[in-house]
Amino acid sequence: ENRARFLIKCPDQPGIVAAVSKFLYEHNANIVASDQFTMNPEGGEFFIRIEFECPDLKEQVSKLETRFVPIAEKFNMEWKIMYVRDIKNMAIFVSNEPHCLLELLWEWQSGDLMANIALVISNHETAREMVESLGIPFYYIPANKDIRHQVEVKQKQLLEQYEVDLIVLARYMQILTPEFVGHFENRIINIHHSFLPAFIGAKPYERAYQRGVKMIGATSHYVTNDLDEGPIIEQNIGRVDHRDNGEDMKKIGQSIERSVLARAVKWHLEDRIIVYKNKTIVF
Amino acid sequence: ENRARFLIKCPDQPGIVAAVSKFLYEHNANIVASDQFTMNPEGGEFFIRIEFECPDLKEQVSKLETRFVPIAEKFNMEWKIMYVRDIKNMAIFVSNEPHCLLELLWEWQSGDLMANIALVISNHETAREMVESLGIPFYYIPANKDIRHQVEVKQKQLLEQYEVDLIVLARYMQILTPEFVGHFENRIINIHHSFLPAFIGAKPYERAYQRGVKMIGATSHYVTNDLDEGPIIEQNIGRVDHRDNGEDMKKIGQSIERSVLARAVKWHLEDRIIVYKNKTIVF
Amino acid sequence: ENRARFLIKCPDQPGIVAAVSKFLYEHNANIVASDQFTMNPEGGEFFIRIEFECPDLKEQVSKLETRFVPIAEKFNMEWKIMYVRDIKNMAIFVSNEPHCLLELLWEWQSGDLMANIALVISNHETAREMVESLGIPFYYIPANKDIRHQVEVKQKQLLEQYEVDLIVLARYMQILTPEFVGHFENRIINIHHSFLPAFIGAKPYERAYQRGVKMIGATSHYVTNDLDEGPIIEQNIGRVDHRDNGEDMKKIGQSIERSVLARAVKWHLEDRIIVYKNKTIVF
Amino acid sequence: ENRARFLIKCPDQPGIVAAVSKFLYEHNANIVASDQFTMNPEGGEFFIRIEFECPDLKEQVSKLETRFVPIAEKFNMEWKIMYVRDIKNMAIFVSNEPHCLLELLWEWQSGDLMANIALVISNHETAREMVESLGIPFYYIPANKDIRHQVEVKQKQLLEQYEVDLIVLARYMQILTPEFVGHFENRIINIHHSFLPAFIGAKPYERAYQRGVKMIGATSHYVTNDLDEGPIIEQNIGRVDHRDNGEDMKKIGQSIERSVLARAVKWHLEDRIIVYKNKTIVF
Repeated sequence: ENRARFLIKCPDQPGIVAAVSKFLYEHNANIVASDQFTMNPEGGEFFIRIEFECPDLKEQVSKLETRFVPIAEKFNMEWKIMYVRDIKNMAIFVSNEPHCLLELLWEWQSGDLMANIALVISNHETAREMVESLGIPFYYIPANKDIRHQVEVKQKQLLEQYEVDLIVLARYMQILTPEFVGHFENRIINIHHSFLPAFIGAKPYERAYQRGVKMIGATSHYVTNDLDEGPIIEQNIGRVDHRDNGEDMKKIGQSIERSVLARAVKWHLEDRIIVYKNKTIVF
Repeated sequence: ENRARFLIKCPDQPGIVAAVSKFLYEHNANIVASDQFTMNPEGGEFFIRIEFECPDLKEQVSKLETRFVPIAEKFNMEWKIMYVRDIKNMAIFVSNEPHCLLELLWEWQSGDLMANIALVISNHETAREMVESLGIPFYYIPANKDIRHQVEVKQKQLLEQYEVDLIVLARYMQILTPEFVGHFENRIINIHHSFLPAFIGAKPYERAYQRGVKMIGATSHYVTNDLDEGPIIEQNIGRVDHRDNGEDMKKIGQSIERSVLARAVKWHLEDRIIVYKNKTIVF
Repeated sequence: ENRARFLIKCPDQPGIVAAVSKFLYEHNANIVASDQFTMNPEGGEFFIRIEFECPDLKEQVSKLETRFVPIAEKFNMEWKIMYVRDIKNMAIFVSNEPHCLLELLWEWQSGDLMANIALVISNHETAREMVESLGIPFYYIPANKDIRHQVEVKQKQLLEQYEVDLIVLARYMQILTPEFVGHFENRIINIHHSFLPAFIGAKPYERAYQRGVKMIGATSHYVTNDLDEGPIIEQNIGRVDHRDNGEDMKKIGQSIERSVLARAVKWHLEDRIIVYKNKTIVF
Repeated sequence: ENRARFLIKCPDQPGIVAAVSKFLYEHNANIVASDQFTMNPEGGEFFIRIEFECPDLKEQVSKLETRFVPIAEKFNMEWKIMYVRDIKNMAIFVSNEPHCLLELLWEWQSGDLMANIALVISNHETAREMVESLGIPFYYIPANKDIRHQVEVKQKQLLEQYEVDLIVLARYMQILTPEFVGHFENRIINIHHSFLPAFIGAKPYERAYQRGVKMIGATSHYVTNDLDEGPIIEQNIGRVDHRDNGEDMKKIGQSIERSVLARAVKWHLEDRIIVYKNKTIVF
């Protein structure tokens, strides 16, 4: 596969696109897709994602990366090139409710999730059979808030062993420590079962029912150390009415959670998401 | 017009529907539409809305209402009959942004709002011309939090003079006193420019932008003395992305506000809403 | 389970609700939910669905059904009582694409589909493993238009053997004969991968792409002998844009198909659908 | 205003973006936004829209346009530069139902439609007062299919007199001749009150009601000589159910028509739409 993605973030100024596109052209790369965004044309932050194809990309890699350095320095860029053939290793964390895990497994089976599901970690045995039947390693690690650190030691060991790039919390009902989160900055995606910032924290469907809302939602976001306050990647909602009790809302919500999380994971895997301050740019 | 609507709330028990429908049948009423809801089949609250037609309804009114008393007492009902020909008088309060007012005027002109728009009260002159050109009285009453009581004295006077049944806050940016709210319980409809309970209070679009949400919303609700905490009638949302700044969100949001408020007002006018505790049943 | 559902269709006239609700009350039935609809208050068709609970329903059944006959005759009713404990037997027909089958299996596993999935019939082997792993019988019956009748003979035999009440065509890409369809009137649910009546027939996603539509959809309907012209039960759509080719539309569409079919099947199983002429009333 | 938009269409090949962005950079233009799309990375058609700012744009115009010619020739480009300060002149055609006209007038009044509404032409007098009260010329030209040519002669005269760039058919219920359409290729936007290609032609709501659909829609498209077959710009839908008759669908549909048409017109005015074959690319 000769395809790659250029992700660049720098202060806006004239000439960036000209410099980058000239660079790519001189290295025989053909631009397949390109998206850019400027916070503010007068001195704001500039973001660009360029997907390109380049013959013999494998041989070119180190050359490309070395030769780009002077351009990057001139424009004061943060940048990386992601190679499509470097399939990312993904770990899925799940607790007792398997619907989000199932959706990811399904998308993966259909070839819609360009990742290697390296392992599944759970504090319940519920999903073992389903996961192992697909040939994916399943690890049962009991967890609760008193043994958080021991649990994370084991988890980190596994994540290193499997060289995990991305952790997906597919309804994993445990809070992670700041150390753990810091170690995987912008690489842990969570699904929260409410339309954030409404109903942060526990039991959002029950609270939505108590409040009498007419729509419920789900939010996927990168995990930070502020509970449910990380950069939002995607949200969606569904209608409810007075006939729907907390249990009905949960059912309706689960199908929203499934699709919202799957979209967020897919975008991350396609290197479409740039985090800036506490927000995401999704190209 | 020989059409009316029966609204009943009582503890659930067998025989309610049989009793009410027998009563209507014996008074030559034909049931045109009927909706019911039970909080909990085992002793929960029961709600029913029956729309019926009855020949010579005008003459029958007092007879119907008198004769229903024993049934109401037997089942311990809260009830009322609303007559379609009793067009409700509506006051619209607005501040500087006229989009919600405009939507209501428009629906009213097209014959979609079965109400008499008795008057418009504003703390700005912005909308005067538009309102008066439709032959609707417009009252300019400057307002701010220091003169709240004097303002409300004038407003109440006008509301009495025009025998107002329903007050619609079409983006009226002043807080009402508990006395005022108490006087019009479940008869003041507000539009809040966020997806409640997210972004209660001031500047929701700005805060939505700061938070980086991917959807914004609007909520119409009955006003209570807890700011933005009253019974929710209707909500809707629209998509935004990283390209939309606070100003863009406001534009997108305004069209959501318009339709969400118009729907809530229409449902109220059609006697479709029953308030129970802090929630609405919308039939 | 002491719960049942009354489904009635008759010419509208005063007294129907009174008569039915009195009847239920006299048999100690408590009405849990009730929905009604009149085509036209002046002599149109009247429809009602009443969900009720009745102690010792099992013993009461024949008594209820016998005693209701005079009322039914008086009002010229078509009626039936469906008992919740009589779980329906469902057959799923599928061809090569398993996404709709999978959704149904999943909902069924989660306890959200109140049916017995009696068997799966396919003209491909693709889904065998998945189906059998859940303990559901799988029958491979190769099919094409030249052997339609032989195929249907085998299918009918199986459907009789398993006493099937409902057939779900979960992307079964074969046309059924009028005899077969006539035998299961309003008991075959199909999912068509377009927003009907747009793109009737083959290859709707490809044609949607050619036409340059900005939204694609899916439609579930009862099967009649006019291809894709049967009574529509449910529809939904999703956005596409110029970046989406036929293959992308197919991916986006599959997730719409899944949820649209699952909703239609659920409503059928809950006896919420009344077919009238070529339309559905969904209560 | 120093802002302009570059619209380019050419066969895809390496170096296009490099050449264009270098050109802009050398003329001191800062790229504010850029969107591109390739039909097919291997020799497909390539499309790009670049929004840029350039100091002293007014003085630069002819220089820019002249100097770009060699680049355009090298890559075999169709191209144009649209200057934001050249406000487009828009004519609105309307018949008896004013809701779409009203929406456009409203957006225009709020400053959301960057156009000069030069005139309104109608075959009914309905909208005269409303239009003239905003200071916009209103022309009543009775029309029917027998006098089509005479009518269009008058219309063309007015369109020339007002130097009209864009014609919006805001529910104008007359068919235009091929001569007229040919004269304004891709510059006539129509709103059709169905989800095309469903219900092409007359009375779509009535036909939607007859078919028993569960959703209705609206479609805005450029007018071609095939009725309702032109390139689709935008579509949207709304839910209906068995309670909604043809009249209700019309009401629900009108609010969809309003927003779908307004979006299409806005995108056209912002030079976001490129027509290719019978499809649109909307950047």
